[in-house]
Amino acid sequence: MAIKFEVIKEEKYTGARLGKLYTPHGVIDTPIFMPVGTQATVKTMTPEELKEIETQIILSNTYHLYLRPGHELVKEAGGLHQFMHWDGPILTDSGGFQVFSLSSLRNITEEGVTFRSHLNGSKHFIGPEKAIEIQNALGSDIIMAFDECTPYPSNYEYVKNSLERTIRWAKRCKKAHKKESEQALFGIIQGGTYQDLREQSVKEMLELDFPGYSIGGLSVGEPKDLMYQVLDYTIPLMPKNKPRYLMGVGSPDALIEGVIRGIDMFDCVLQTRIARNGTAMTSMGKIVIKNATYERDFSPLDPNCHCYTCQNYSRAYLRHLFKTKEILGLRLTTYHNLYFTLQLMKNIRQAIKEDRLLDFKKEFFLNYGYTQ
Amino acid sequence: MAIKFEVIKEEKYTGARLGKLYTPHGVIDTPIFMPVGTQATVKTMTPEELKEIETQIILSNTYHLYLRPGHELVKEAGGLHQFMHWDGPILTDSGGFQVFSLSSLRNITEEGVTFRSHLNGSKHFIGPEKAIEIQNALGSDIIMAFDECTPYPSNYEYVKNSLERTIRWAKRCKKAHKKESEQALFGIIQGGTYQDLREQSVKEMLELDFPGYSIGGLSVGEPKDLMYQVLDYTIPLMPKNKPRYLMGVGSPDALIEGVIRGIDMFDCVLQTRIARNGTAMTSMGKIVIKNATYERDFSPLDPNCHCYTCQNYSRAYLRHLFKTKEILGLRLTTYHNLYFTLQLMKNIRQAIKEDRLLDFKKEFFLNYGYTQ
Ligand SMILES: [Zn+2]
Ligand SMILES: [Zn+2]
Repeated sequence: MAIKFEVIKEEKYTGARLGKLYTPHGVIDTPIFMPVGTQATVKTMTPEELKEIETQIILSNTYHLYLRPGHELVKEAGGLHQFMHWDGPILTDSGGFQVFSLSSLRNITEEGVTFRSHLNGSKHFIGPEKAIEIQNALGSDIIMAFDECTPYPSNYEYVKNSLERTIRWAKRCKKAHKKESEQALFGIIQGGTYQDLREQSVKEMLELDFPGYSIGGLSVGEPKDLMYQVLDYTIPLMPKNKPRYLMGVGSPDALIEGVIRGIDMFDCVLQTRIARNGTAMTSMGKIVIKNATYERDFSPLDPNCHCYTCQNYSRAYLRHLFKTKEILGLRLTTYHNLYFTLQLMKNIRQAIKEDRLLDFKKEFFLNYGYTQ
Repeated sequence: MAIKFEVIKEEKYTGARLGKLYTPHGVIDTPIFMPVGTQATVKTMTPEELKEIETQIILSNTYHLYLRPGHELVKEAGGLHQFMHWDGPILTDSGGFQVFSLSSLRNITEEGVTFRSHLNGSKHFIGPEKAIEIQNALGSDIIMAFDECTPYPSNYEYVKNSLERTIRWAKRCKKAHKKESEQALFGIIQGGTYQDLREQSVKEMLELDFPGYSIGGLSVGEPKDLMYQVLDYTIPLMPKNKPRYLMGVGSPDALIEGVIRGIDMFDCVLQTRIARNGTAMTSMGKIVIKNATYERDFSPLDPNCHCYTCQNYSRAYLRHLFKTKEILGLRLTTYHNLYFTLQLMKNIRQAIKEDRLLDFKKEFFLNYGYTQ
């Protein structure tokens, strides 16, 4: 087995879990947020900086790496860790989400998906076996079964047919996976926002006995309350002794709500994406650094933050960097947003330890300006 | 006096100088190359990284900082050092070069230059007093007298009138300078490619007794041989006990040729600019990292380089970053190019120490692929 997972503690009032996830490239304290390195780089950051902010695991994208530079090239380079100079744990997604969301002219059959590259229109095919072959070549610590992430809203019939095919695909992924002792293959639970379909998906996925499970098909445009409802009826069906990963979710409120419901792992491009627009997450809520109000504000981005950016630069300087389109602005804001989020996860773990997660949530929401 | 300059040694065969330049923010070993931080940031780099590669002094641009964020704002921030979080020496240019090369609709009078911003067309005036006021507000260690950098080619009459006005402006700069004990004001020698005009410019500038002198109006499109000729007849007229700064020159060959002729300081945007196009300076000459030939080249950018980039990343990875337009590619290549150039200057200083600068030049040119 490539990974081992221990639940160390359940929070007294919520059941939120504190855990340890052992991977071939290191031990991860859960619950954890995974910065996204789509193209074998977490945008603007070096691996050393990722370590400095206590990144425990990063996510990289199978679809993107398959197209550029190609998984065979990454394999020749010695695998993704070596290629990108990151020696910590890596999780790769299955490519399914991007095949469905980025490519054009896709054609789904039982076999897999034929699609055209969003880069140059070239024609490709990815099915379960190919998704595993790519991820085997990349050498990530955790790999995902090939799935279809159904959009929101989708009709019942479509979601049912899709999740059943995703389960057949998951079986083929399991069969195709050649490196069980080096890479842990997770199953993905789909079913949209239909309770009986989520139940069906969990039940049939559990029969395949994957070392971990993710919940897919959420944070795709549905209201947040609906997402929480789905978590409320899905998570209790999932095994307690295996890591639970909520895919593509990473806003501060959703991280806290997810943990409260029993999620162990999250990933999201939000932190790095909004940083590039000059939006910072702070203990007092989001701030848009380009705004004129910060022109002569010589205080740090977040006075409560101990990150490199906040220790050394002012809002006025960051605003100047964004106004003049200087790359250092993207760097410093990305650095802060990731630090902020990883600190949030650390604080969440501490709150679980001390059985005060609901108080922590209340205080955080109040300061951040969330109304709930 | 804000600065002190010592010539420690002259190379036996060339007269190239090894020196120490004492500034309010630190001591600089000369000859030195100054990375350019046009908009209060050396593009893509943090100040810590600049120190890591042994940057001794950076250059920043008066014209750009005057327009954005404005020198008054920088002053309010505590000066340029504080604003940009760089506590080492800074040199600012006079703004003259950019007023003449970037702005539109400029109108030169004896008083100064009225021009329109290259950013938004707004109307501004900078004359000698204003250039000094701006630089006093920025608080740089070395500031430059306001000058006109005549283009190449320019006719004799134009260059003569211009250099004479530049001398009158230099006198006004000297008079306007309020912080002689904190900031050293350098005079700029102009005169285009006319020997008698260069002689006139040096002679009249020396009468003003500046603590340092720069040579301007070179590397503006003239052939390199012509530039070296101008240096050959200009430098011997300059005082031995004051730093000599060759503005805007920084290709490896010109750095070596400049030092051989007695230059102490250089600046250039070349290193950072070509890095952003994916061109790296290496001990074996320039390489364009995007080229297909590097697709599966898992060796470092420069096998002889000890920089962070070359120690940790392959050409194949850097190529991937450039092909996918990832910012880390710009960072890593900029880092390498600046490291390479600062190492070159270090090697030049060592060669002066050991009286083998001409041998060093021969070897470097051979490896780099220069024909001379
Ligand atoms: Zn911060
Ligand atoms: Zn290097």
